[in-house]
Amino acid sequence: MLRHKVGDMLNVMNGQGIVAQVKIVGITKRETIGKVQSIQEFDVPKIKIRLAISPLKNNDRIEWMVEKICEMGVQEICFIQCERTERAHLKPDRLNRIIQSACKQAKQFWFPTIVFDVAFMEEVKQGFEQRLIAYCDEKTLDITSVLKSNLDTHILIGPEGDFTSEEVDRATLSGFVPVSLGASRLRTETAGLYATAAFKFVNP
Amino acid sequence: MLRHKVGDMLNVMNGQGIVAQVKIVGITKRETIGKVQSIQEFDVPKIKIRLAISPLKNNDRIEWMVEKICEMGVQEICFIQCERTERAHLKPDRLNRIIQSACKQAKQFWFPTIVFDVAFMEEVKQGFEQRLIAYCDEKTLDITSVLKSNLDTHILIGPEGDFTSEEVDRATLSGFVPVSLGASRLRTETAGLYATAAFKFVNP
Repeated sequence: MLRHKVGDMLNVMNGQGIVAQVKIVGITKRETIGKVQSIQEFDVPKIKIRLAISPLKNNDRIEWMVEKICEMGVQEICFIQCERTERAHLKPDRLNRIIQSACKQAKQFWFPTIVFDVAFMEEVKQGFEQRLIAYCDEKTLDITSVLKSNLDTHILIGPEGDFTSEEVDRATLSGFVPVSLGASRLRTETAGLYATAAFKFVNP
Repeated sequence: MLRHKVGDMLNVMNGQGIVAQVKIVGITKRETIGKVQSIQEFDVPKIKIRLAISPLKNNDRIEWMVEKICEMGVQEICFIQCERTERAHLKPDRLNRIIQSACKQAKQFWFPTIVFDVAFMEEVKQGFEQRLIAYCDEKTLDITSVLKSNLDTHILIGPEGDFTSEEVDRATLSGFVPVSLGASRLRTETAGLYATAAFKFVNP
């Protein structure tokens, strides 16, 4: 039903800002031949967000979150191994397909990068302008009063059991500011969604 | 494995701000007897959000969204019948269980109300202080520059095919302001998530 025929127009994108309008001029069993009619180039997003998050035992929750943050717009996704990260079985191929499909749907012409199995201690060495670590503690300030606009932002989200206080100390030494994501006790994937939404809200 | 025994403490909540700490004092085949040890009362949220959203053919997407917005905190959920709403089969019992479970998880002690099958033309008659309708149109202002804090807020989210311009006109007559949810083309359930997150961000 969704099969194309000669004469149809397609949008073809490379995930790096280029979208080509292509007209199908020939279809054989082996290949489809298209002719590029026009090309549009989209600028790379000026301000970027890197969401570093612990994987979960439940893959569905992570895959759903990846779809949603891609729709909203994210530039880098990183899965971090924290002290309390539970054993997870992320499926890179499947996640890459979800990313492509969500970005096409949302017209995000720059696809995010995704990396797996990064040690927490390595991840905190990234030198983003704005560094935040979500941490459930009575003393932490709400993200609302901390998050600044127009800065490349790195946000760390921990596992269901949260970061250890040693991890938070280590991140703080590397310039990360602990932030609360509000009074609710959010699940890990909801925290990732909410942090990304907050970033989009201050950088529309 | 999750079975309780005599002497265990439980939190029991009524979804309307009351949480009781209960000690199990007896277990028979038919009933569990608990003794209330203490009672906490939580104030009703000062500022409320009513999210009115079109249902989708795909129930999973709606159920996932309901879980997430309950975690973030929402007071009223309303499913609206719009011109372009596709046939949906919402499962009220299942949605109510999801609401309860998500609110318990997130420590939201006031459960939201949920209503089904409300005609769009009826829904716009609600008289909230702040009324927004999400609409994908080049002229609409971004929600970032419209959304005010400290106001009871009513947000309308349309079906995959969006609201008709007649519906937007009708809402505008009733005091709704059309807002854009950013440059991305969000799916309906992602729009619901994002709008709720934006509300939480300005009302932490």
